[in-house]
Amino acid sequence: MKLYISPRAPNPRRVQMFIAEKGIAGIAEVVVEIGKDEHRSSDFRAKSPLAKVPVLELDDGRMLGETRAICSYLEGLYPEPNLMGETFEERAFIEMTDRRMEFYLFGSIANCIRHTHPGLAPLEQPQFADFGRSQGEKVREVARWLDEELSRLPFVAGERFTIADITAFCAIEFARGLMKFRPGHEGLANLQNWRDRIAERASARV
Amino acid sequence: MKLYISPRAPNPRRVQMFIAEKGIAGIAEVVVEIGKDEHRSSDFRAKSPLAKVPVLELDDGRMLGETRAICSYLEGLYPEPNLMGETFEERAFIEMTDRRMEFYLFGSIANCIRHTHPGLAPLEQPQFADFGRSQGEKVREVARWLDEELSRLPFVAGERFTIADITAFCAIEFARGLMKFRPGHEGLANLQNWRDRIAERASARV
Ligand SMILES: N[C@@H](CCC(=O)N[C@@H](CS)C(=O)NCC(=O)O)C(=O)O
Ligand SMILES: N[C@@H](CCC(=O)N[C@@H](CS)C(=O)NCC(=O)O)C(=O)O
Repeated sequence: MKLYISPRAPNPRRVQMFIAEKGIAGIAEVVVEIGKDEHRSSDFRAKSPLAKVPVLELDDGRMLGETRAICSYLEGLYPEPNLMGETFEERAFIEMTDRRMEFYLFGSIANCIRHTHPGLAPLEQPQFADFGRSQGEKVREVARWLDEELSRLPFVAGERFTIADITAFCAIEFARGLMKFRPGHEGLANLQNWRDRIAERASARV
Repeated sequence: MKLYISPRAPNPRRVQMFIAEKGIAGIAEVVVEIGKDEHRSSDFRAKSPLAKVPVLELDDGRMLGETRAICSYLEGLYPEPNLMGETFEERAFIEMTDRRMEFYLFGSIANCIRHTHPGLAPLEQPQFADFGRSQGEKVREVARWLDEELSRLPFVAGERFTIADITAFCAIEFARGLMKFRPGHEGLANLQNWRDRIAERASARV
């Protein structure tokens, strides 16, 4: 299998971290430089019609896009360690939390960065800076809620490390780089401690 | 079980349509009027911390939020007819398409409506009308891609009706009501034909 990624892009990183947690070996990485617009080439669009990374190319040539769908496939192929739930009930609750991390944390961070950061202007045309800044406020609102959750829970979806931690961690790291967002500087000690614990995992260094 | 919904809100509608397709009986509906801000009461926030509908209350009192997570749970409890994939491989490909419908079709429609429609001003503060209008253009881009897909495929994820058709249909119906968007009027005959076929299903009348 081949995984199409772009360096420093947070969605490919989610899949890379998922693969590292599983200890899966032998998936080749192919770089598509979104900074150089390579993802919009007709060549890459044949693999990813909406011009997004990551994409997983299966051994039979089929192309599987969308971060969480790629993880679902890999979880099926490599069930251990389990990251998405053992029973359908656990799977549903982990999916709930993963979606909250994706829509409200990751999504607001991505909107904020894409609409305010000059480095993202080539990707997001036109940028709406006022909208971006107001999304930055939503990030802080959701981060405060998550900080409170993490005063009770060791991981974002509960008692163990799951895909939802990967989604949240890649979001927070993206915000750290491009929004200079540090939970600790905003009084969110639980979120900062959780982030620091996750950063120590080997998978966080992919 | 109880399902918290709001009349005319498209995300609860996705779950209602999913339930109707499965023929599940006995889930009571509880109305939370988002137009009257009932979802932001502390009472409802105790069920849904980010103040969103739908939420499914399980018989043991636990609250399961997030549209697709609720569907995953119901698919586990009521496997037939299958709407989310039989094997892990089919599940991953259906999830890919469902996510494309959710992020790029539904998401752009929701952003457009929430930021441009006066009726949505109470929910979306502040509204950024320019951003909303540019999202309307993204809707049309994605709709053109989907129209092309539907020239080859009977359903959005392939040969059979799945959850991805529900997501896409509820999005298109939302756009029909609040953006006056008619695929047929934009030259997208395949998308219009698909929409009209889905609209004939009993589940579309919930
Ligand atoms: N919904 C997609 C999002 C993928 C995505 O937005 N990837 C970014 C990189 S992190 C990208 O390809 N951006 C290029 C663009 O938007 O033009 C997924 O879950 O994989
Ligand atoms: N990611 C959520 C989205 C739910 C959502 O946005 N629901 C709308 C109604 S369609 C809502 O609760 N809006 C209230 C608000 O945003 O204040 C899901 O999948 O269920």
